[in-house]
Amino acid sequence: MTTVAHDTGPIGYSLPLSPSGNSSMITPPPWHFSGEVVMVDYRVDPAAALRFLPPGLELGPDPGAAAAVFAEWQWCSDSGAELEDPVRCRFSEFLILLACTYRGEPMARCPYAWVDQAVPLMRGWIQGMPKQHGSVHLTRPVRVGRAGPRLGPGGRFTGSVAVHDRRLAEAGVVVRERSEPPALHRVPLVHNRFFPGWDPAEPPMNQLVASEVTGVEFGEVWAGSGEVRFLSGVDIDPDLALLAPVEVGSGYVFSYAETLLGGRRLA
Amino acid sequence: MTTVAHDTGPIGYSLPLSPSGNSSMITPPPWHFSGEVVMVDYRVDPAAALRFLPPGLELGPDPGAAAAVFAEWQWCSDSGAELEDPVRCRFSEFLILLACTYRGEPMARCPYAWVDQAVPLMRGWIQGMPKQHGSVHLTRPVRVGRAGPRLGPGGRFTGSVAVHDRRLAEAGVVVRERSEPPALHRVPLVHNRFFPGWDPAEPPMNQLVASEVTGVEFGEVWAGSGEVRFLSGVDIDPDLALLAPVEVGSGYVFSYAETLLGGRRLA
Amino acid sequence: MTTVAHDTGPIGYSLPLSPSGNSSMITPPPWHFSGEVVMVDYRVDPAAALRFLPPGLELGPDPGAAAAVFAEWQWCSDSGAELEDPVRCRFSEFLILLACTYRGEPMARCPYAWVDQAVPLMRGWIQGMPKQHGSVHLTRPVRVGRAGPRLGPGGRFTGSVAVHDRRLAEAGVVVRERSEPPALHRVPLVHNRFFPGWDPAEPPMNQLVASEVTGVEFGEVWAGSGEVRFLSGVDIDPDLALLAPVEVGSGYVFSYAETLLGGRRLA
Amino acid sequence: MTTVAHDTGPIGYSLPLSPSGNSSMITPPPWHFSGEVVMVDYRVDPAAALRFLPPGLELGPDPGAAAAVFAEWQWCSDSGAELEDPVRCRFSEFLILLACTYRGEPMARCPYAWVDQAVPLMRGWIQGMPKQHGSVHLTRPVRVGRAGPRLGPGGRFTGSVAVHDRRLAEAGVVVRERSEPPALHRVPLVHNRFFPGWDPAEPPMNQLVASEVTGVEFGEVWAGSGEVRFLSGVDIDPDLALLAPVEVGSGYVFSYAETLLGGRRLA
Repeated sequence: MTTVAHDTGPIGYSLPLSPSGNSSMITPPPWHFSGEVVMVDYRVDPAAALRFLPPGLELGPDPGAAAAVFAEWQWCSDSGAELEDPVRCRFSEFLILLACTYRGEPMARCPYAWVDQAVPLMRGWIQGMPKQHGSVHLTRPVRVGRAGPRLGPGGRFTGSVAVHDRRLAEAGVVVRERSEPPALHRVPLVHNRFFPGWDPAEPPMNQLVASEVTGVEFGEVWAGSGEVRFLSGVDIDPDLALLAPVEVGSGYVFSYAETLLGGRRLA
Repeated sequence: MTTVAHDTGPIGYSLPLSPSGNSSMITPPPWHFSGEVVMVDYRVDPAAALRFLPPGLELGPDPGAAAAVFAEWQWCSDSGAELEDPVRCRFSEFLILLACTYRGEPMARCPYAWVDQAVPLMRGWIQGMPKQHGSVHLTRPVRVGRAGPRLGPGGRFTGSVAVHDRRLAEAGVVVRERSEPPALHRVPLVHNRFFPGWDPAEPPMNQLVASEVTGVEFGEVWAGSGEVRFLSGVDIDPDLALLAPVEVGSGYVFSYAETLLGGRRLA
Repeated sequence: MTTVAHDTGPIGYSLPLSPSGNSSMITPPPWHFSGEVVMVDYRVDPAAALRFLPPGLELGPDPGAAAAVFAEWQWCSDSGAELEDPVRCRFSEFLILLACTYRGEPMARCPYAWVDQAVPLMRGWIQGMPKQHGSVHLTRPVRVGRAGPRLGPGGRFTGSVAVHDRRLAEAGVVVRERSEPPALHRVPLVHNRFFPGWDPAEPPMNQLVASEVTGVEFGEVWAGSGEVRFLSGVDIDPDLALLAPVEVGSGYVFSYAETLLGGRRLA
Repeated sequence: MTTVAHDTGPIGYSLPLSPSGNSSMITPPPWHFSGEVVMVDYRVDPAAALRFLPPGLELGPDPGAAAAVFAEWQWCSDSGAELEDPVRCRFSEFLILLACTYRGEPMARCPYAWVDQAVPLMRGWIQGMPKQHGSVHLTRPVRVGRAGPRLGPGGRFTGSVAVHDRRLAEAGVVVRERSEPPALHRVPLVHNRFFPGWDPAEPPMNQLVASEVTGVEFGEVWAGSGEVRFLSGVDIDPDLALLAPVEVGSGYVFSYAETLLGGRRLA
């Protein structure tokens, strides 16, 4: 037996690397998502929003436009294997979106995101989405009984997010009527793929990238009045507090699907 | 100031008792439930089923009929307050049902149940339902995209349950066509309200009770082929292993709602 | 085969009942506990404390004396089986204690308690201790390195408790010197074994009981300055807020063990 | 107000980037660790071990030497802030170590690791350690009472790890006598800092790195007999199954501390 590692060594799309590559924590894209979204448009101080934009991005035609997005997802790899093992295919997410433009193209910037599972967290970092671990809960539409809102006039949907046992934000939407999809959910996401160096001499990886998606589908979109509250938990992060609402707009509830293919480098 | 407790002391529907009664962990019934169910009919050895029936119950006309039920619930008290705070209104459940009769009336006996939240666990014991804490996951129908089954011909739904990091059981259903609701989900549940004594001289509370429900609603019921597997985790409980499938029948996927009002003592 | 349940039916110390009794969620006492405790003496408004005492209890010689107790436990049944499966033998707990007397005998009343595991929660209700589910965290003494306090002069210990993603309370202790065990940890606990009725005509079980323990051991007790803060999460329960500190006393850090044997009825 | 992002944009050691840099999920090193370790030496098929080594590493003088390591950690940044908020400073870990050499220098390779918190998971990837999310439990030495082992002759310690509700491995150690620290815990860890590309044209980051640590401290090391079992959960990853024990050696229980400073690139 040789005792020197062979030429290629263990392989994989991600860590952990292994002889066959099948131990990889993350499956390679495409990744398919189907989810239920509760979203509230709101406005932040445009000067605050600007401080969250990296070089190359501009506030664009609607400075300070923002959204609070709660979503409950199912996801699967191209094989669909995760749907066979439902402990793996569900997660919930809260994120903040800021309107921006790149060379005049409308995009959305996600300064903060929290998910309740490790695989989507890591998948976020691969694409530059700054996902952290949080506790995210939302109500879902029901079709029978009294324990939930109906997806129709008067249905009231709620969401909450907490980190380290502190409530960060809550939202509520009372839907009134059918609507077009909200603007900030129809534009590409632009992220910094940022990963720290490790050798003290090594700079971090830092790439401006846009997500490439396909298979976008909206179910019925219902819109109505929205509420967003930032709560005491934000006291522990004054930067997050900069993005608290100065004005709250419409709320939306809808099913949404997309397939995430990969990314493209921006200049 | 007096230093002797007043006549009534702290109050509440349940522990913890407090001056106003509002600290009670459990709200008083009625409790409203709206959920999504993935259920598989199967058969156990009738002699094994019989060993799980208390005095007063009989196997009835279909000895050994059983079901494995995965459900994801929203619930609320009469006030609906839990829907305003979605960290409180959701839980998932796995339970086993056995066909039985009481004085000729068809009922279902639940020998084992697991939920992933403490409030429904305790509410279970109040009504005599032997809920324990487990990890329960199931897929849900999606209306857009590729990350989940559609509630229609060919849709494949899955469920899994684990306790103490050991997988107990898994189920799968491929739905084919509309159906009537499954028999074991249409009959009252009969429980032993059993609660240990504490003073060594005190016998346990032990009452045979049936649940009183109202507001029963089934959404579209879809039926097809079912699978149930009991896995290695049952090795740690030979009693549970007695209820492993000897034959597997149809599977069902449906929305279901009910309001639980309380119970009635059986003889 | 007979199809009528046999005379005794399924058995067990608790639900779930099963043919052998081994499916019981709770093992019968004695229950052995070994833990690490961070405790802060504080004072509440005596009139508020009185409102939490049931008939038969008095405030006693030190009205308003209270304590906030964080503990991290290992536990096992008499067989020690849980220590072989460490997913089962650990939990963390936060509780509040109020000084009181029963017929002149000093006791402690626990108006609120939270644990992070279901088995100790249910075991609490069997003995009348009003345990709910919460998220409880504390630092532990370390013997090497920089990532924790040493159990010696200057060591700073912290604890936090949250419910439903809201921080309820935090405590801190800086230990200075060896001490006797704190008074409220040396007296019997007096509980209401309270369990709701289910048939609408049935009153709740309500028994005043004291815990019977043996094998009490304290490790080295270190004492120093204490801090307790009730946080925004208590806003959702005004009754709990009644027990907020009006004055904070000493803090203590110690190892503690006991064996819980059962209870005795008080008048 | 300008609406173009300023020159530097948001900053941070890691995502999320923010105006002050304080939103970063990961604090910059040094990171301090103090923990309790239960470790079992075992042997794998050397040919299997070799398949997990990247180019540049050799099996070295003891081919097939391996260890299963359970640890419960406290950690903090240089500021010590995490110790003030104990929900943040604790995690448990299971990892496998393989003996290897780099240019003749003895090192340890970690092919698999699981932790129960997101921050150490991500910190693992920054240093190339292939941490995934798992459920890890171990018993701890107690100093009073019956609910745990004493750190002395006859003390029996256990550990378990599960992923996605499936038990992967269990270990047990009965300590007999004082010992030197185990060999595989005294050598540097050598990792592949591997991070997927995102733009389809971009290769993954792949760097061979060794960890730079300081402040290593061992508490009393106790050694005795060891057990390791790989369980049914490994069936879902045949690569992991390659590293199942072919022989089991000694077990060790000890406190351990280190400060992780960063890494150095190997050729």
